[in-house]
Amino acid sequence: MILTVTLNTALDITYRTAALTPHATNRVAEVSERPGGKGLNVARVLSALGHETVVTGFAGGRTGDALRELLAAEGPFDALVGIAGTTRRTVAVVDEATGDTTQLNEPGPTVTPAEWASFLTSYEGLVARADAVALCGSLPPGIHVGAYAELVRLARAANLPVLLDTSGEPLRRGIAARPDLVKPNADELARLTGSREPLRATRDARRRGGRAVIASLGAAGLLAATPDGSWRAAPPKAVRGNPTGAGDSAVAGLLSGLVERLPWPDRLARAVALSTATVLAPAAGEFDPEAYADLLPRIAVTEQAP
Amino acid sequence: MILTVTLNTALDITYRTAALTPHATNRVAEVSERPGGKGLNVARVLSALGHETVVTGFAGGRTGDALRELLAAEGPFDALVGIAGTTRRTVAVVDEATGDTTQLNEPGPTVTPAEWASFLTSYEGLVARADAVALCGSLPPGIHVGAYAELVRLARAANLPVLLDTSGEPLRRGIAARPDLVKPNADELARLTGSREPLRATRDARRRGGRAVIASLGAAGLLAATPDGSWRAAPPKAVRGNPTGAGDSAVAGLLSGLVERLPWPDRLARAVALSTATVLAPAAGEFDPEAYADLLPRIAVTEQAP
Repeated sequence: MILTVTLNTALDITYRTAALTPHATNRVAEVSERPGGKGLNVARVLSALGHETVVTGFAGGRTGDALRELLAAEGPFDALVGIAGTTRRTVAVVDEATGDTTQLNEPGPTVTPAEWASFLTSYEGLVARADAVALCGSLPPGIHVGAYAELVRLARAANLPVLLDTSGEPLRRGIAARPDLVKPNADELARLTGSREPLRATRDARRRGGRAVIASLGAAGLLAATPDGSWRAAPPKAVRGNPTGAGDSAVAGLLSGLVERLPWPDRLARAVALSTATVLAPAAGEFDPEAYADLLPRIAVTEQAP
Repeated sequence: MILTVTLNTALDITYRTAALTPHATNRVAEVSERPGGKGLNVARVLSALGHETVVTGFAGGRTGDALRELLAAEGPFDALVGIAGTTRRTVAVVDEATGDTTQLNEPGPTVTPAEWASFLTSYEGLVARADAVALCGSLPPGIHVGAYAELVRLARAANLPVLLDTSGEPLRRGIAARPDLVKPNADELARLTGSREPLRATRDARRRGGRAVIASLGAAGLLAATPDGSWRAAPPKAVRGNPTGAGDSAVAGLLSGLVERLPWPDRLARAVALSTATVLAPAAGEFDPEAYADLLPRIAVTEQAP
């Protein structure tokens, strides 16, 4: 079983409009809703790949109920912890003509110390049964900034491989607790290390505690610095589409490859193929299975000089 | 008791942001929710004026539940009819710096013929007990375009004064059923009559069936054409602020004045004072009671030549 943790879950709402006109009244043509937050996106892809997946984190209020109802219709098992606060919404307003998206993100609910304690108890139980865990996304108000470091240490104490995908100070603290994988994007890596040179920054991030650091470089694919070597993995050509969720699909590729004990080049090829097939899918945050199958053998993985 | 009808109720969500940047990710600083739709706004003001008020219309799904929970904390009595569909949301994104608002309106739920029949039964029971009724706002999908005409006729058959505040074809059909009051704004009046000259258009609207026609002219106040004469009512000076809900406050002023048997000039002064005090209130769609008390004696009501 693969466990994903999403402390700041969201009910993701998508509005399709002819075009968003600021400071005017806009009619929404179509409304859709989906369970959201990075770890829930990762879990959806893991589930589609055939992995038994459990999601945890927090959910509360009417939006939390709506999220859980939608989640029940998807593959992952719901081990979310209930809270008194109300799960946030995100609203993505998509211009139908151009595909351009305006994103509105509500603040998350405040999580109480008692709720955090209850989560930790549940997490320790899940960690004992998992083959790998991914810790994903931002922290809601009330959660201490070292929370991911704490969760990394608990996973490591249980000999569980742990992947960390967050940003800012939670990433800085979390990486020092020595996670097995870290997957920052170029901006997050630059904020962490002060360097915009990906190879240098990736190696710097390893020195800060990441056993393997896989940087996502957008359309250019992935750059991996691992104990077994360094690789670049790139799609056959840059694709156009909606990059929402592409990073989460890459995390699912890396984590499933780890659990299946694939060699690094195969893990990276899978992560890039899934990520590219997500950009190509019509619905944001889902991957196109045909595009994935077509891309997988065509990802170029090249070893980098040590 | 005053009855207000809102066939297309909404859960009104307000997002405060530093500034809305299209095609980017925007953090929402503050979220608030309120029962919405014109008739619910009218009822809130009537309640604040001390009138016993009942609201009807439709509510369904999680958003309908949220709306009813919020409504229970306000003054009006909830006689909404439950439906299988889900009540729409509206999202108002307010730029904190400028106060400019970008509005996103979801489509309403489809109302089935059985749900409309159930509403009509409930409406006839309420009409028998009411002193006046206001029919407010747009029609959700599934409701026939002559619905307001039908509701006007049922009210008139019960000798109940009826005010109609809608637009487009539902207004055109509804006015032909001879409502006691119609309150179009300048745009709605121009679409109905083809004339942008308010006095001419107001009198034309009376010939189409409105016993009294009160046109709202924004910051210029109201223009009334009634069986007892014609008047203009204007605030002492144009005010700046958020005009959301100003028209609904004017409807509450007209309807409460009718029930209290005030002479026309007093009804119009109340409607303009409430409407102006709504523009001045910090929260959209609420009126500032102190501003209302201050403005009421200062509204200039002037009779127009017949």
